Amino acid sequence: MTPATAGNRDAADPLRRFRERFVFPDPDLVYLDGNSLGRLPSSAVDRAGKVVEAEWGARLIRSWNEGWWEAPLRIGDAVAPLIGARPGEVAVADSTSVNLFKLAVTALDQHPDRPVVLTDDLNFPSDWYVLAAAARRADGEHRVEVVRSPDGIHGPVDAIIDRLGEDVALVSLSLVTYGSGYLYDLDRVTRAAHTAGAMVLWDLSHAVGAVPVDLGAANVDLAVGCTYKYLNGGPGSPAFLYVHPDLQTALNNPIGGWWGHTTPFEFDAEYTPAAGIRRFLTGTAPIVSMALIEPGVAMVAEAGLAALRAKSVAQTGYLIERWRGDLAPLGFTLGSPEDPERRGSHVALGHPRALAIDLALIAKHGVAPDFRPPDTIRFGITPLYTTFADLDRAVEAMVEVVTSGRHLAEVSPPAVI
Amino acid sequence: MTPATAGNRDAADPLRRFRERFVFPDPDLVYLDGNSLGRLPSSAVDRAGKVVEAEWGARLIRSWNEGWWEAPLRIGDAVAPLIGARPGEVAVADSTSVNLFKLAVTALDQHPDRPVVLTDDLNFPSDWYVLAAAARRADGEHRVEVVRSPDGIHGPVDAIIDRLGEDVALVSLSLVTYGSGYLYDLDRVTRAAHTAGAMVLWDLSHAVGAVPVDLGAANVDLAVGCTYKYLNGGPGSPAFLYVHPDLQTALNNPIGGWWGHTTPFEFDAEYTPAAGIRRFLTGTAPIVSMALIEPGVAMVAEAGLAALRAKSVAQTGYLIERWRGDLAPLGFTLGSPEDPERRGSHVALGHPRALAIDLALIAKHGVAPDFRPPDTIRFGITPLYTTFADLDRAVEAMVEVVTSGRHLAEVSPPAVI
Repeated sequence: MTPATAGNRDAADPLRRFRERFVFPDPDLVYLDGNSLGRLPSSAVDRAGKVVEAEWGARLIRSWNEGWWEAPLRIGDAVAPLIGARPGEVAVADSTSVNLFKLAVTALDQHPDRPVVLTDDLNFPSDWYVLAAAARRADGEHRVEVVRSPDGIHGPVDAIIDRLGEDVALVSLSLVTYGSGYLYDLDRVTRAAHTAGAMVLWDLSHAVGAVPVDLGAANVDLAVGCTYKYLNGGPGSPAFLYVHPDLQTALNNPIGGWWGHTTPFEFDAEYTPAAGIRRFLTGTAPIVSMALIEPGVAMVAEAGLAALRAKSVAQTGYLIERWRGDLAPLGFTLGSPEDPERRGSHVALGHPRALAIDLALIAKHGVAPDFRPPDTIRFGITPLYTTFADLDRAVEAMVEVVTSGRHLAEVSPPAVI
Repeated sequence: MTPATAGNRDAADPLRRFRERFVFPDPDLVYLDGNSLGRLPSSAVDRAGKVVEAEWGARLIRSWNEGWWEAPLRIGDAVAPLIGARPGEVAVADSTSVNLFKLAVTALDQHPDRPVVLTDDLNFPSDWYVLAAAARRADGEHRVEVVRSPDGIHGPVDAIIDRLGEDVALVSLSLVTYGSGYLYDLDRVTRAAHTAGAMVLWDLSHAVGAVPVDLGAANVDLAVGCTYKYLNGGPGSPAFLYVHPDLQTALNNPIGGWWGHTTPFEFDAEYTPAAGIRRFLTGTAPIVSMALIEPGVAMVAEAGLAALRAKSVAQTGYLIERWRGDLAPLGFTLGSPEDPERRGSHVALGHPRALAIDLALIAKHGVAPDFRPPDTIRFGITPLYTTFADLDRAVEAMVEVVTSGRHLAEVSPPAVI
């Protein structure tokens, strides 16, 4: 592979025009961290001005009747088609962790006699913590059981399915794991869980906007996910939650607040949950951060998940190809699945000097992936704006860092990595 | 009272220059709803541009190390002096309802043998719902008991104190009630609760930024509050929570997530809560909405709560004076305490045709208070920008609406009131 080949691929990319719709204040920066924080869509700049100056500044409280109050469900309905959900099945509000708590508690309340919450050791740590918190607060006695990956890369799908039984209340996994980017088989795991009488709660944070997801076809019970990664919603933008329509009446929000009340503006003494997905809301949504989600979601919908996925598979495949040719000889290991069907939209490369390499890539080469301890560098590919040339730049920078010995420098991690 | 008098008072107002630091796209609008959503500070417009374009757009993930990660505690430290707290005692994140849930659950966990959560019938309904949710999820058996106000205006302070006993785990009240604007005696109730061995959890939503609050002097255990009312943080801006420093180690966050972990970037399997107030964080904060809190908080701090309170008392007093002279004869009743020591920064007026009057004020007079069912109109006074002339305009508009018979029109409330 040569840079010319990357150039040809970029020229032939049917999504290449989407890159122009993002802000590039530093055109030389190779940003491979869209799996952590997506880039700023130009239209989000306009939206920020409008929500702050026109809606807050000029219309003030009247804006509650002009779009704000409906924002959690309206944006949920915009996210829905990206995950195979229908209108009224998704709401946007709170953080992924708070949403996970709400849905895990109400799921476990359904099975007070089944003690086990099943997850894996590839899950995002906050999910472990929150599942444990939910297990402590739900009806009945529950505990989290962590099934171990055979190799730290692939999800322990067979072991999870083998483990299913009458003691399992809930299976909760990240559809794409945050470290290795392993992509679970949504249908297979969901079906196996249901056969065993357990519910499923998928965390779609590293999947939504990059991988086609069909919650409806898989008959998924519950899901949560993040809007600031491949949906480009802005730093810490509120998360979404999905509840299967057949469950929306049976399940209750363990943090029922006024935004989930059936008639919040009658200020009733009694809490009566709204019908449908609204009952899973709690308090007032952070409207400015909410509003900035819509431009990115609209772009993902316009590009289409089939096209995004095709480009993502091509780009992660290309990076793995270049790893094999140029990086494996320098001591880099592949920390993501080789099988594209089991791979999300980021590639993890391992190296004993990963932290020093990561810091040198940023400081000396203007290449920004991210480091995950102890020895992994993640390269996030956002098909809306990542180019094949970006991947060449990243590979060449890694070659330079290691062949120059720069990776041997003593380094310490920044506070936030 | 005549408009000239209001003009004289405005001319003599030592805070009058603060009004110029807010955005007034419609200078004719008399906005008396700052107790619901504060106006837009001009500096928040600049801050919005900076957080979106410079921090998100240009710096991308590097911004996590350049201020974002610390935002919940940094903004908490900025709020702290407004409520008599010290650095490290306040964090900003999540909604008021979610924060109330967290602190109520951990408080009740301390007293599994004391069944009662005591509140009043003037509390904001979401607080009732969330306290009930917390009572259901905390260790032990708990229930919420609602003490009734003698008149729907004044807090049932004596009845609450009489009710205290060994069965009460927690007293949770709004320091300023959302309807009548009754201001509790923070010291007296807190002291009585402590004497009975109960904890206190104050909701400061309608107090912070308008009423001097000294949590430290009163030895308050726990508090939460809103930043989008008198702090002018923008629609749905994240809320704050306060935990007394002596309790920060004993209490745990029932929704412990990665933002509250002691070493979140080591991605530990075990949840180990951070020392101090950070442990009460859960997931990623909505950074854009967070950033817009700081300009309003800085202005409140600059003006000083003594000056703000003096003006607020003068203005609520002036409005009550005008009510007595011009509105009482037209059937308006006073729904707020006459004693300024027991009054927050809004005035409630009752009228059997309150909804029709409220809608006519907005539509025909450009005067925006808000309606609360069944028959109350609230006039919020934000001393940073409310003028005495605004209050004259509001009174004259009410006189016109009622003397013209416009208040007899058939009306229905908008979806969000």
